[in-house]
Amino acid sequence: MAEGRLLDELARLLGATGFLCGDQVDPRYASDWSGCRGELPQAVLRPADTEQLAAVLALCYAARQPIVAQGGRTGLVGGAVPATGELVISLERMRSIGAVDPQARTVTVEAGATLQAVQEQVEREGFLLPLDLGARGSCTIGGNIATNAGGNRVLRYGMMRDLVLSLEAVLADGTVVGGLRTMRKDNAGYDLKQLFIGSEGTLGIVTRAVLKLQPLPSSHDAALCTLDDFSSALELLSLWNRCGAGGLSAFEVMWGGYYEAVVTTGECSPPLPPGKAYYLLLETQGFNPPADRERLETLLGEALAADLIADAVIAANNREIGAFWAIREGISELLARLKPGFAYDISLPPDAIDAYAHTVLTQVRDRWPAGQSFAFGHIGDGNLHLFVHPGPGDVAAGPRIDAIVYEEAARFGASISGEHGIGVLKRDHLSCSRSSGEIEIMALLKSTLDPRGILAPGRVIPASHA
Amino acid sequence: MAEGRLLDELARLLGATGFLCGDQVDPRYASDWSGCRGELPQAVLRPADTEQLAAVLALCYAARQPIVAQGGRTGLVGGAVPATGELVISLERMRSIGAVDPQARTVTVEAGATLQAVQEQVEREGFLLPLDLGARGSCTIGGNIATNAGGNRVLRYGMMRDLVLSLEAVLADGTVVGGLRTMRKDNAGYDLKQLFIGSEGTLGIVTRAVLKLQPLPSSHDAALCTLDDFSSALELLSLWNRCGAGGLSAFEVMWGGYYEAVVTTGECSPPLPPGKAYYLLLETQGFNPPADRERLETLLGEALAADLIADAVIAANNREIGAFWAIREGISELLARLKPGFAYDISLPPDAIDAYAHTVLTQVRDRWPAGQSFAFGHIGDGNLHLFVHPGPGDVAAGPRIDAIVYEEAARFGASISGEHGIGVLKRDHLSCSRSSGEIEIMALLKSTLDPRGILAPGRVIPASHA
Repeated sequence: MAEGRLLDELARLLGATGFLCGDQVDPRYASDWSGCRGELPQAVLRPADTEQLAAVLALCYAARQPIVAQGGRTGLVGGAVPATGELVISLERMRSIGAVDPQARTVTVEAGATLQAVQEQVEREGFLLPLDLGARGSCTIGGNIATNAGGNRVLRYGMMRDLVLSLEAVLADGTVVGGLRTMRKDNAGYDLKQLFIGSEGTLGIVTRAVLKLQPLPSSHDAALCTLDDFSSALELLSLWNRCGAGGLSAFEVMWGGYYEAVVTTGECSPPLPPGKAYYLLLETQGFNPPADRERLETLLGEALAADLIADAVIAANNREIGAFWAIREGISELLARLKPGFAYDISLPPDAIDAYAHTVLTQVRDRWPAGQSFAFGHIGDGNLHLFVHPGPGDVAAGPRIDAIVYEEAARFGASISGEHGIGVLKRDHLSCSRSSGEIEIMALLKSTLDPRGILAPGRVIPASHA
Repeated sequence: MAEGRLLDELARLLGATGFLCGDQVDPRYASDWSGCRGELPQAVLRPADTEQLAAVLALCYAARQPIVAQGGRTGLVGGAVPATGELVISLERMRSIGAVDPQARTVTVEAGATLQAVQEQVEREGFLLPLDLGARGSCTIGGNIATNAGGNRVLRYGMMRDLVLSLEAVLADGTVVGGLRTMRKDNAGYDLKQLFIGSEGTLGIVTRAVLKLQPLPSSHDAALCTLDDFSSALELLSLWNRCGAGGLSAFEVMWGGYYEAVVTTGECSPPLPPGKAYYLLLETQGFNPPADRERLETLLGEALAADLIADAVIAANNREIGAFWAIREGISELLARLKPGFAYDISLPPDAIDAYAHTVLTQVRDRWPAGQSFAFGHIGDGNLHLFVHPGPGDVAAGPRIDAIVYEEAARFGASISGEHGIGVLKRDHLSCSRSSGEIEIMALLKSTLDPRGILAPGRVIPASHA
């Protein structure tokens, strides 16, 4: 319970728009897309700018008041869900987007801007912000940075870490660090921004960032293919890379069961019938529309001739590209419909993906025959998503499913997070992918930068090391 | 002076091949390419593997014995030059290079392997390690990681930080951390490898790494152009980016004085006569030789028509491409010939580069009219190199030249290092590009990870904060 005096000071500092308490605190502040339900916070602090956020943190730090920062609350590991006694800091009022610097090819944004708002603004100025994920309409740049978001186009452009040129963050005690630098290269001492990227708000709160942009492609093509075996997907990817065709911007595989579950509940007729082993969504973006389309057709022709793919359909227009993606992003609807449900985000060497998925899905289906479980993911990056619904009613299945998924991950030398992060839900499985020595260094960094442990306590670092 | 007992223990641990002392210590261990002369170390420690290095560090840590790690000693900021009382740890015996993993597109190497040896080995297997710099034959992967090396192809492939998938390092006390993971994406907790990349051996010593490879391009073209003004270079780069032509792998500008100095001392006749304001070396690599060459010709034709370039010559073959690059890399010969000489590595927003270079060169030439000073650099990345020779005899000019270069850097909001790092030579200028708060965090990280300060003490962090 926060002290009344601290709350009074925060209320005075933030004003009526910036300080919500009691009935003003909407239940949405208590949860995220993981389905984790937290405690309704006593207050939601909504600073207007970096200076106010710094003052908020200085007050909380002095009072040893734990807080958790929130962006769009679209995380899947419960990282932004408030625990008992935590106040919420929401960046939702800090959403300004600067003009594109065309020479430096950068845009400077506040952390609370949504990904989609930034994508659309830079596109109007002829540039591409390459980060893209299903939650684009709600997730924020600050959350994308804090979690080192991945998504659909990592294959070509990298993760959020690769798109941040510089950033400004506030430390636990209210110290503002970093700056908004537009230089491409900067080796002046330790690269401190790396501390804040992917540390899920536990080492500081990102307030603003300079993002690297790409030229806006003028061609956009996509194909949906069926494959009889998984190794064909890897061979097709190698073929594409070997001929250096470039332009590939997504390489997503959906296991047959996933495809069927999505298309049979959808309203439109599917582009390819369900019932095949694997479905591949392959997307290209380029700068030479007719030649790019031809290249895709040629490559698919070669793949058909080599029996790598069984069937393929190329999208005729942007609407059809959107329809392909709607199938891939149909997971959101499954997540919402199949409760309880448990989502996983495993990263593996390419040649281990299929065997890993097979062994986990087999064990899960044997144990929960009334349930449903699906595999799909960013296979071009070696990142597999699994979603397991053990059947209605079995709300206690989570830890047993976790055990299967994470024990196999350890056995396969996989990472238990490709892109979602660790948050609360994976915290106590971190040792499946990290040595005790590594976790100790994480805990050491945490206690060094936030010695009072007020920033998102209990996230990322396992209780055994905290 | 290291204690005799420690030296005995190290000698026993490392054996005759691994422990050099007295006359066995070659003078080369006392300097690097910066020209900084250090002290000849009492002993050079040459561990055979990670385990031996860990044991070496554990002994040194227990004895509070300062050490400095050395790769190829090609650094330009004195970081690897031993100071009084330091022992040298050389990674020169740890140079094995694993086979390429073609599916994961990675290679695993030991830190002491030279860049060129890795480049050549992966090329034989059909892949490209994109990092490339003039020191390729001597510099090592460990040094490239420790300094976050940049070089000729950052524009297209990024810096060394972008090429490291995972690494293993040894901390000051001998703890081995990290691992050799081949996954593309890995968000399992804090990304600890970032601590060791670019921290110049002050937080740990990198022993092995998994590097990300690219498909080996099949086309390679280069053009050398003259430009009447600098803004034309930026316009040409924008033109290239706008049409999304891709394939650009280097965009290097040499100011007229640099070009003249290099070509008039060279043995061959220059591809273009000296006397112009700027010379641009533009390189492309692709996968479609005739089309890639045609694209380059078309773009240069447009640039000529738009008066962006005054004259251009396209290399007819690889030998001519090599001749263009020899001019750009002619700086090594100038560095060796013009003594004393001072090298700088400034990173700026693109539209500030020319004005910055102009003001610095003007001041330097006014003050040292008998000297020579040159500008050139990776302009596609906003990274300007300056080399100042104040004239023969004026060995004390360094601090006065530094003052001009760094004061102007601060005024222009530049970084005092794009790629060379900070080391010893730039340490006390770090505050030109970093706030006191940032430097404090660097010092805090250093004291947290190396509480006894035995790893490369006195590098990176200014004396005022150490």
